[in-house]
Amino acid sequence: MNYFSSDFKLGILGGGQLGKMLLTETRKFDIQTYILDPSAEAPSQYGATRFFQGDLMDFETVYRFGKKTDLLTIEIENVNLDALDQLEQEGLAVYPSPKTLRLIQNKGRQKDFYSENNIPTAPYRRFTDKNSLIQSVENNETNIPFVWKSAQFGYDGNGVKIIRTASDLTSLPDTECIAEQMIPFKNELAVIVSRTPSGSIKTYPVVEMEFHPEANQVEYVICPARIDETVAQKARAIALQVSEKFNHVGLLAVEMFQTEDDAILVNEVAPRPHNSGHYSIEASYTSQFEQHIRAILDLPLGNTDSKVAGIMVNLVGEEGYSGPVIYQNIEKILAIDGVTPHIYGKRETRPFRKMGHVTIVNENIDEARKTAEIVKNTIKVISHS
Amino acid sequence: MNYFSSDFKLGILGGGQLGKMLLTETRKFDIQTYILDPSAEAPSQYGATRFFQGDLMDFETVYRFGKKTDLLTIEIENVNLDALDQLEQEGLAVYPSPKTLRLIQNKGRQKDFYSENNIPTAPYRRFTDKNSLIQSVENNETNIPFVWKSAQFGYDGNGVKIIRTASDLTSLPDTECIAEQMIPFKNELAVIVSRTPSGSIKTYPVVEMEFHPEANQVEYVICPARIDETVAQKARAIALQVSEKFNHVGLLAVEMFQTEDDAILVNEVAPRPHNSGHYSIEASYTSQFEQHIRAILDLPLGNTDSKVAGIMVNLVGEEGYSGPVIYQNIEKILAIDGVTPHIYGKRETRPFRKMGHVTIVNENIDEARKTAEIVKNTIKVISHS
Repeated sequence: MNYFSSDFKLGILGGGQLGKMLLTETRKFDIQTYILDPSAEAPSQYGATRFFQGDLMDFETVYRFGKKTDLLTIEIENVNLDALDQLEQEGLAVYPSPKTLRLIQNKGRQKDFYSENNIPTAPYRRFTDKNSLIQSVENNETNIPFVWKSAQFGYDGNGVKIIRTASDLTSLPDTECIAEQMIPFKNELAVIVSRTPSGSIKTYPVVEMEFHPEANQVEYVICPARIDETVAQKARAIALQVSEKFNHVGLLAVEMFQTEDDAILVNEVAPRPHNSGHYSIEASYTSQFEQHIRAILDLPLGNTDSKVAGIMVNLVGEEGYSGPVIYQNIEKILAIDGVTPHIYGKRETRPFRKMGHVTIVNENIDEARKTAEIVKNTIKVISHS
Repeated sequence: MNYFSSDFKLGILGGGQLGKMLLTETRKFDIQTYILDPSAEAPSQYGATRFFQGDLMDFETVYRFGKKTDLLTIEIENVNLDALDQLEQEGLAVYPSPKTLRLIQNKGRQKDFYSENNIPTAPYRRFTDKNSLIQSVENNETNIPFVWKSAQFGYDGNGVKIIRTASDLTSLPDTECIAEQMIPFKNELAVIVSRTPSGSIKTYPVVEMEFHPEANQVEYVICPARIDETVAQKARAIALQVSEKFNHVGLLAVEMFQTEDDAILVNEVAPRPHNSGHYSIEASYTSQFEQHIRAILDLPLGNTDSKVAGIMVNLVGEEGYSGPVIYQNIEKILAIDGVTPHIYGKRETRPFRKMGHVTIVNENIDEARKTAEIVKNTIKVISHS
């Protein structure tokens, strides 16, 4: 198959920042790319061969879009899976497959999948609604404290809550959910795995994540994670196993906990390029976005090693500011060696909205970590109003 | 000035592969970019905020395009300079300035400029036409062999010819030209300099160029050049001096000869991102394209050091093939660690047409050089017909 400067058309469902960074790679390879996104102002509105505005959850919209393409991928999970099933049945290559997406979309089914496949994960219980959860707590089958997770559409701080007292239960939405045992952990880690339709598979190095305590958004992603090599190897082996068991094609970001006694527990996965891999644009021989394109097109996977240490800082909207965005002090961080801001192209900021990220690279990871802190304390995502 | 996700509009004259690679950076920073190019099929047709089709040599077209923008730059030298003069007089920032472009556009004036500013360059004579050149040869003022160069619009093998016998003179076009003394040299080198309107200035490491003997196009660009550190320092110092004397703003690629006795002679300059700097996308902390954007916007210049050694191989159309392009064996080179192809997005190949380039990076420059040779001997730019 000839993908380069040819009539081949890659379709991407979703046109956010992940789509935008994928487009950098499809432009580099001159692969024609069609994007579908509900917003005319989507970050991916430029750089695609064609941009289509439409509802990603609407069967007809997704189906008709898919029929225009030769291969379909996603940059967001919440898309109409029935349309993907139909397209796949009609012979279109859809990577990752709707079957895998269906499994991952529901956190209850995802946890069951880990249990069935002997993939280590924190103990949990599934509940069809809020009432059955409350009864389970009242019957002492589920013990407070625990982590509540909405089964569907929960990410980036939505749909996850720590339940510390019985009164915390009342504010929960009435929805399918899981209650997960709270496990004390040393580190939150992630491993990105790339896998082709032919079964070639490669893992990226383990990254270490630090979360913002309030926003529940990643504050620093550090590559390589500052952990023992044996723990790193274990984490990569488990991530590899997860991708293989899912028969996944494309990128799979596997988020994990390193427990106090150095066990690795899989937290959850994202079946696409991921925030925890953004460092790879500047630090790795092959960026996660190029790797995703290589994987879904069944091209040879690139080298996942790093040239230099990399740390990523998310640029999220400051509290108290909503309106046209200003990146205050961006020229100050541009003056620091090895600092690269990525601006996603959203015109309006809101508190905690993901507006961009900054990568800091250095041969020395401790130097990079110091610079990252300076960057984080210098640049502010604000607005005049 | 707020450039990021704002109403600021950067204009770029020219929409070839250099424009395309600049757009990767303006997208990364979410800077609105308008492109003007004569071809509707230009590599930069995607990724710009707006793409305008029009003649770069036409006063009205360039002037009207410029009026839509807040700052104007170029990715090709051959543009209507009168329009740029007019726009500059009306207060538009034009970088590089039309004054500098006018100097550089004429190789005779460019050589005079080096002489006047004590910048070392090969001895030369200027001629207004072919006849005066022939008379100078007949009078033994100009001695064969010498290098003939058309004063205007000569690059990439057009407009440069080595005159070895008197009969070689007859085939020359009748145009303003220079005759340059042939200097035996060890190496062809290049240094890219970036300079801001405020006068901040940085040089990239010296690169070494190997030319294809027939096509007179660069075959390998090797960074860092495998030369003595003292010679490298001299080359960087001279390149810096050239940029400063020109009062240049943006990138200036300074091509140089290293003579047998390690003198450095300036050959010619290009006032824009340059083929000799493509390696920087994968190898440098700051790519030349990002650096050009930083320079013209008077932002802090980025670190010009390399993370790893880099070698670039140009992908030019094979002789004997014209038509829709096929990148034969591209999947084989993608299987090699540290190999990144860049496909410019030209649908049709022709003999020696620049269709793309491949960067090879490695911690070890000798390993990179071996891989570069494998890449060059593996991938072929051909066509079915």
